[in-house]
Amino acid sequence: MSEREVLSVTPGTDEYVWTFGGAAPVARIRPGTVLEVFTEDCFAGRVRGTGDLVSEVCDFPFLNPQTGPFYVEGAEPGDTLAVHFVSIEPARDWGASSTVPLFGALTSTHTTATLQPALPERVWIWDLDRDRRICRFSAADSDHTVELPMDPMHGTVGVAPANLEVRSALVPDAHGGNMDTPEMRAGVTCFLGVNVEGALFSLGDGHARQGEGETCGVAVETAMNSVVIVDLIKGAATPWPRLESDSHLMSTGSARPLEDAFRIAQLDLVQWVSGASGMSELDAYQLLSQAVESPLANVCDVNYTSVAKVRKSWLPATSPAYGGAHARLREAAARYRG
Amino acid sequence: MSEREVLSVTPGTDEYVWTFGGAAPVARIRPGTVLEVFTEDCFAGRVRGTGDLVSEVCDFPFLNPQTGPFYVEGAEPGDTLAVHFVSIEPARDWGASSTVPLFGALTSTHTTATLQPALPERVWIWDLDRDRRICRFSAADSDHTVELPMDPMHGTVGVAPANLEVRSALVPDAHGGNMDTPEMRAGVTCFLGVNVEGALFSLGDGHARQGEGETCGVAVETAMNSVVIVDLIKGAATPWPRLESDSHLMSTGSARPLEDAFRIAQLDLVQWVSGASGMSELDAYQLLSQAVESPLANVCDVNYTSVAKVRKSWLPATSPAYGGAHARLREAAARYRG
Amino acid sequence: MSEREVLSVTPGTDEYVWTFGGAAPVARIRPGTVLEVFTEDCFAGRVRGTGDLVSEVCDFPFLNPQTGPFYVEGAEPGDTLAVHFVSIEPARDWGASSTVPLFGALTSTHTTATLQPALPERVWIWDLDRDRRICRFSAADSDHTVELPMDPMHGTVGVAPANLEVRSALVPDAHGGNMDTPEMRAGVTCFLGVNVEGALFSLGDGHARQGEGETCGVAVETAMNSVVIVDLIKGAATPWPRLESDSHLMSTGSARPLEDAFRIAQLDLVQWVSGASGMSELDAYQLLSQAVESPLANVCDVNYTSVAKVRKSWLPATSPAYGGAHARLREAAARYRG
Amino acid sequence: MSEREVLSVTPGTDEYVWTFGGAAPVARIRPGTVLEVFTEDCFAGRVRGTGDLVSEVCDFPFLNPQTGPFYVEGAEPGDTLAVHFVSIEPARDWGASSTVPLFGALTSTHTTATLQPALPERVWIWDLDRDRRICRFSAADSDHTVELPMDPMHGTVGVAPANLEVRSALVPDAHGGNMDTPEMRAGVTCFLGVNVEGALFSLGDGHARQGEGETCGVAVETAMNSVVIVDLIKGAATPWPRLESDSHLMSTGSARPLEDAFRIAQLDLVQWVSGASGMSELDAYQLLSQAVESPLANVCDVNYTSVAKVRKSWLPATSPAYGGAHARLREAAARYRG
Repeated sequence: MSEREVLSVTPGTDEYVWTFGGAAPVARIRPGTVLEVFTEDCFAGRVRGTGDLVSEVCDFPFLNPQTGPFYVEGAEPGDTLAVHFVSIEPARDWGASSTVPLFGALTSTHTTATLQPALPERVWIWDLDRDRRICRFSAADSDHTVELPMDPMHGTVGVAPANLEVRSALVPDAHGGNMDTPEMRAGVTCFLGVNVEGALFSLGDGHARQGEGETCGVAVETAMNSVVIVDLIKGAATPWPRLESDSHLMSTGSARPLEDAFRIAQLDLVQWVSGASGMSELDAYQLLSQAVESPLANVCDVNYTSVAKVRKSWLPATSPAYGGAHARLREAAARYRG
Repeated sequence: MSEREVLSVTPGTDEYVWTFGGAAPVARIRPGTVLEVFTEDCFAGRVRGTGDLVSEVCDFPFLNPQTGPFYVEGAEPGDTLAVHFVSIEPARDWGASSTVPLFGALTSTHTTATLQPALPERVWIWDLDRDRRICRFSAADSDHTVELPMDPMHGTVGVAPANLEVRSALVPDAHGGNMDTPEMRAGVTCFLGVNVEGALFSLGDGHARQGEGETCGVAVETAMNSVVIVDLIKGAATPWPRLESDSHLMSTGSARPLEDAFRIAQLDLVQWVSGASGMSELDAYQLLSQAVESPLANVCDVNYTSVAKVRKSWLPATSPAYGGAHARLREAAARYRG
Repeated sequence: MSEREVLSVTPGTDEYVWTFGGAAPVARIRPGTVLEVFTEDCFAGRVRGTGDLVSEVCDFPFLNPQTGPFYVEGAEPGDTLAVHFVSIEPARDWGASSTVPLFGALTSTHTTATLQPALPERVWIWDLDRDRRICRFSAADSDHTVELPMDPMHGTVGVAPANLEVRSALVPDAHGGNMDTPEMRAGVTCFLGVNVEGALFSLGDGHARQGEGETCGVAVETAMNSVVIVDLIKGAATPWPRLESDSHLMSTGSARPLEDAFRIAQLDLVQWVSGASGMSELDAYQLLSQAVESPLANVCDVNYTSVAKVRKSWLPATSPAYGGAHARLREAAARYRG
Repeated sequence: MSEREVLSVTPGTDEYVWTFGGAAPVARIRPGTVLEVFTEDCFAGRVRGTGDLVSEVCDFPFLNPQTGPFYVEGAEPGDTLAVHFVSIEPARDWGASSTVPLFGALTSTHTTATLQPALPERVWIWDLDRDRRICRFSAADSDHTVELPMDPMHGTVGVAPANLEVRSALVPDAHGGNMDTPEMRAGVTCFLGVNVEGALFSLGDGHARQGEGETCGVAVETAMNSVVIVDLIKGAATPWPRLESDSHLMSTGSARPLEDAFRIAQLDLVQWVSGASGMSELDAYQLLSQAVESPLANVCDVNYTSVAKVRKSWLPATSPAYGGAHARLREAAARYRG
């Protein structure tokens, strides 16, 4: 592998995009390019203190700004984009979270519609101690404080959707998008099926950490300085976003009701493992039924996202996924970091 | 604490029960009693080889036999039963799993009803190497074998339901029952709200291991020799089954669609943590949204079961749950084991 | 057909039952018996004015009292009970409706659990003008009044459930129960699969009228004087409750999420029509996809209930359902009325 | 009202659009314009006989062609488009229906994903006797034939969506689109909230008739010659598509699971009636709970669609919806027909 091209992108205030599909590329890149990107938080940086209520300071639908899209040369429908997360580092020493009226899992919403009034709107500012890798919570109604480990991730990673569609950056679906899984952390490779020429990859929505399910609808939102390597795997289709870490294979599904998201992810993992190992689908179904972890990603977005996750060492010897792309990208990341 | 009473129960073939509620107690026990029980597998022991198809050898509705019920003296509605799992040990050196026609997450069912024929019915026998703590899978359609760690658990743990009902042992709901969560392992205390006098506690459905979601509907089913201590907490209500381990608090919810199971578990954990810590519910909602793990239990039973789980060390200093019942039972378990 | 036996039953205050299954029969009847029954309203008659809040005057779980159960001689699992509604007449000149805290479709509930407070609790008393067949609504917060046609029905009709279970009278499922469909009106025959010896038929929950879906969770609840003929069809199984009127065949499904209730009802109607007409299932699927009406019954109970309904004159000439039971019972009803 | 402008549009083969939003207007029209349009069937006219399997002759994603979009002068976000259906007449003497692999309510799908194979793919050609207003079904596997009344409708009617999105014409949502409700027939006015300048109205997907729920996923699909009057109501927002007939008001909701579609439609009707009548929301909730009809539209598309429908004569005297737009458009339709 020759020396990689490196592209640094820090969008200006007006240079973010709010959709997957439908936006002109910010740059054309060759497969293998290292992207050093700044991503703004999901509030477009407008929530800076406990007085900045989302309903007052944010400008709908201009939420969840994405950095990109990047046109990947040579990418065509039927190919797969391999996006390796080299690093994801909070760009500020604070993150913001909030209740948002009629949004979240423990409130009625515009979709799960009731006659009840919304929960109170409230903002929490979390301190991010980047040296100690700590997120500190301060309660609003009492003097409790709690320290949780920092575990930075990108909530939103995706490509232009299929079927001629343009989707809001708030939506997770087969093109990726706002999946909000804590598994999207540094060291992981995300595989995304290409739907349009150039793929049109974007990312955003950094979280200093997030619980599984993103129950209140909002994580510890912060701007990020992230490094990703974007590679292209020709001739390999990927029906739903997949992730690979050094230890695990993961499939995702995004749908409602939540059992459909679960079904999509589990079926994809059965078929992925069956295809890679040569086991029959029924055998893979049996094995994974006993081996799978099923961490929820979000139960608050336009579609809910479920992850099916299996330890690679628990699978029979299989050909490495996507021809060993993850291992190659790990090495490239090591070289990049020098 | 005085010397504990110990009661050993190995039911005869005709002495299992098939429901929660509606069955006469097998014994009356005092709070604090140690139960040494044998539980038969969910097939009532009838699936012993790959030729034993569930639809042929099992006798519906006589599935999922329970050992019990135990009448706990002094237990009344409004109290909580604390069931501590001292040990859960496979009673055989094999376990059975199976596809069951129109049952499981990746097939249509009698409820998610379609015109498609059922998947093929097939049985897998897993070898259980109890010394090495290993479950060995052998594929049916190829010669693949895989070893997974043994992680024994009880799929079904519960009390008589409220509302004058009698529920099949296949059902998980607010009374517990067939929750099928891998978190129900040795070392954990399960808290169950009492609905009728004597509580009428039963358990069964041992799994040598199970994936999260029990995707195909059936785990590595095996008979178990288990030891539990059954204690009573007077005057403390428990709306949905809760679990406590040395490291975590867990709430469960069982419902359909799956997002409702998620909501129940998450709301219960918010209210549990809020009550124990003195934080407001909104603050607990925020904190848990960033801290919670949400491992699925089953996505195949009459109700689906979701678990909300939080590390105790990540909570503000709180009064111990149920007055420190888990810690006390841990000590009692240590004394029992000698 | 010989002269029918007629049995009149008006339960005393303590003689109602609150479950399907689990209660001793109030009487043994021969197939073909005419039952003249009084049924109390779902509040056990305790909501009599706008000051009678359900949460204050009702005694949970003693809600939805049923008249019965009736042991039908000769009924065995695998048979079908045919219950023909001769007449359903309000026993009072008023009916009551209410919001109930955390119950109904446009509020969060104990299952669709949120952190929001419940809607205000409020009772409406409807005037029933039995001569003019009118239900008169009077608004609580303004002086609006509206007259709607009376359309009396039974919300709850069922037999003892299968699988050794006892279910609350608030639950609709394969045994019938609290289906809450406005189609359960006079002139209709309801077919219920028998699960236990004697079938153990009960009914209750009269509604002077109800919208489709029972949105707020409560209809215009009133006591009823009803006449039903209970017949037995040997050797014919019925998987889910079915209804037949002079003009339509109807199947029901009760499940969550609502699309599963829809699927159950539609699949049953496809299979019913296919079996009766000799058309293939795929042909019946196609025909019914263009012919079916799908009125919702309830979207508020423990399971939601969906109805699939097709005009008999739109079907190919088929053998009459259940050997013409509906027509025979219509004639018997005419003779009874004299 | 001055003489109306009349615009006739019959798209060429390459002039259909496949999305709502994202397509250039075919024409700019003034509010009040009469559109005489030809719409192609959902198969783009490619299924012409029982040998034309959808998976073979159709060119995904080029399904469900729409005629339009029409830019309505003066339409701005916050306004409402009133689309009155003057007539909907089949343009051919046959219609086509089909099973489509992994699509429909009684099959697993790409979303309700299972390991089962798809149902057999099959096409039915229905004869349309336009003089007798009859659709004739001929069974594929037997010689059964059935005649059903013709009841022409448009499955797909909508405007460009909000939130910068472009949605496939197969999707129903708040912008309208593929709602597939049989209520969208001649004589009805459909109200659609405007999301972008010019509204960008399109329609298509004619059905000679359709059952409620569109169970198999496909209606009696045919090309249509339709006449609609497109009017603009300034300053009136419409959150979800509404319909008004001479007798009824109707709200729609499109979501998954189906109970959420139900909730949206019922809540919108409660708020619509409350706003128009001056009754409180709780009073409207109570009244509609007893008065509403809830016919399902589709239970097969990307979102499911539920309709809440109330007889206008059952409401208290209210100011006419949208200032009497429906009545005015009815009169305009009468003048157009001469």
